[in-house]
Amino acid sequence: MSKKTVSLADIQEAKARITPYIRRTPLLDQTAMNDEVGCKVWLKPEMLQYVGAFKLRGALNKILSLSEEDRQRGIITSSSGNHAQACAFAGQLLHCPVVVVIPEDAPQIKINNARAMGAEVVLWERTYDARWAKIAEMVKEHNYVVVHPYEDPMVMAGQGTLGLEILEDLPDVDTVLVPIGGGGLISGVSTAIKETNPNVRVVGVQAAASAAYYESRKAGECVGVEPLATVADGLSCRRASQVNFDIIERYVDEIVTVEEDAICEALRVVANRGKLIAEPSACVGIAALLSGAVKVRPDEKVVSILTAGNWNIEDVARIYLGEAGRAVH
Amino acid sequence: MSKKTVSLADIQEAKARITPYIRRTPLLDQTAMNDEVGCKVWLKPEMLQYVGAFKLRGALNKILSLSEEDRQRGIITSSSGNHAQACAFAGQLLHCPVVVVIPEDAPQIKINNARAMGAEVVLWERTYDARWAKIAEMVKEHNYVVVHPYEDPMVMAGQGTLGLEILEDLPDVDTVLVPIGGGGLISGVSTAIKETNPNVRVVGVQAAASAAYYESRKAGECVGVEPLATVADGLSCRRASQVNFDIIERYVDEIVTVEEDAICEALRVVANRGKLIAEPSACVGIAALLSGAVKVRPDEKVVSILTAGNWNIEDVARIYLGEAGRAVH
Repeated sequence: MSKKTVSLADIQEAKARITPYIRRTPLLDQTAMNDEVGCKVWLKPEMLQYVGAFKLRGALNKILSLSEEDRQRGIITSSSGNHAQACAFAGQLLHCPVVVVIPEDAPQIKINNARAMGAEVVLWERTYDARWAKIAEMVKEHNYVVVHPYEDPMVMAGQGTLGLEILEDLPDVDTVLVPIGGGGLISGVSTAIKETNPNVRVVGVQAAASAAYYESRKAGECVGVEPLATVADGLSCRRASQVNFDIIERYVDEIVTVEEDAICEALRVVANRGKLIAEPSACVGIAALLSGAVKVRPDEKVVSILTAGNWNIEDVARIYLGEAGRAVH
Repeated sequence: MSKKTVSLADIQEAKARITPYIRRTPLLDQTAMNDEVGCKVWLKPEMLQYVGAFKLRGALNKILSLSEEDRQRGIITSSSGNHAQACAFAGQLLHCPVVVVIPEDAPQIKINNARAMGAEVVLWERTYDARWAKIAEMVKEHNYVVVHPYEDPMVMAGQGTLGLEILEDLPDVDTVLVPIGGGGLISGVSTAIKETNPNVRVVGVQAAASAAYYESRKAGECVGVEPLATVADGLSCRRASQVNFDIIERYVDEIVTVEEDAICEALRVVANRGKLIAEPSACVGIAALLSGAVKVRPDEKVVSILTAGNWNIEDVARIYLGEAGRAVH
């Protein structure tokens, strides 16, 4: 068993490992957006990352750190979203077989995407427990390496490279806004930042409809929630993970939540001012600024991580026309 | 009178001059787009430039090269689009008064944008001749420096810095696709490229609805066209300019045209694959690949300059829903 945590050294090693394979995304200051958000804001646009999501960082770091033998046998994971695509892409690149267990009711497009990148897709029951039981069974049979989307230390270390890049590009950053879904991204990023400079404020942002970590902090322990439908489905999370909760409690200064309206408005601001197609889950940081959920000073230097862009112009059009907005209210 | 042409040395000087003020936009390879476009394609996303357009490069280079005296008196230009905003933004940054003569029937938003950036807006008749007569009159009275949006050598040199950046980031580029409206961008970019490496192919792309340079090349001399309505209104051009035509004839290998359908499809591909909001005029290079207007080999390294993104998500939604598409067909 690998240790269930992550350190700055792990993240620095991850950076050296994955650098040849990822896009070093730029950090984009947003003069035209500052008035709206009430501070000096920079965007870290991971929709411009290969496969359109930061998830590639963790997947690459995991596969690159496997023994030759393990890599040849392959990896297995469960996800219907960006993590599955990232694993499939990284596996194809590094000649590592990839199995993804996907809920049987997932959209066909996500199944097709994973298959198109060479992954073996296993359709299975929708619940988390059923899927991970299936994975345990397949691991017993094939001896695959399991890649958990947010609890795996190598995955967290890969995601944490985003924190190092932010500090390199804007050493005097005051605040970093990080979306929280499963908690892997903020575990890596907050570790990278706080173990380098504890004075930088790290704020986690959750959709109010699915705020397991927000509720867990209030409760003082890991709790579950009944997630409501949210336009930010990429952040849907039924229960805080103990592994990630421990890191978050140690390193994340605040956790705030944002409502559906604010997320849709943030999507619009990111498109119209930032000229970037973000998926809704990527926009919660900007939503937190627009809604006042996170307090900032006008001269505060704030970075908002835009996690992913696996959305189509068709979806954006629907959001603008309020159809998806209506569906989730 | 300044000389009406531009050289590699001018463009190198422009680069040194404007570098502290512009965003060095990244060159983004597009693995996910290659199959659709039939080659290895890179995007140069100038919608991520400040003010959302490459036009800032030329405006900054012009103002930065003025004498202190000229800069204090101010500049004057005519445009209702990105050039006006770029001049206003650059003028505000460099404490240079800016007057823009805008057609009296221009959308209020464009008038407001120029004013919001501190420009003095003069509303005048719609025709090119009437507006430039008004400018001549105001220059006589106030001794402003005229900044022509595409004939001015300092403007062309500023736009040409895009060519230098492309060569820096992808020295073995085979082909560069450049939208042609007035012709200032391609004058600068083709000069930068051909005077550095004559083996790189430079292809100019025009909307079929407004193809003055395409027709002029066929005719062997500068001719005018009656521009039809086009979704790529940023490229609308009534007549090829002799200054730009001479440079284009010298340095541009091919000029191709694209239809409205292909432009709308390219907008969709840039959004869905590239995750970028482009205005339609920015997408003609990708449209030329999608439509086969420009011939490429599968292993050919092609850069498409995405000139600008001064479009809103609302416009994109309309295009996707075919309203604007219908309007222009």
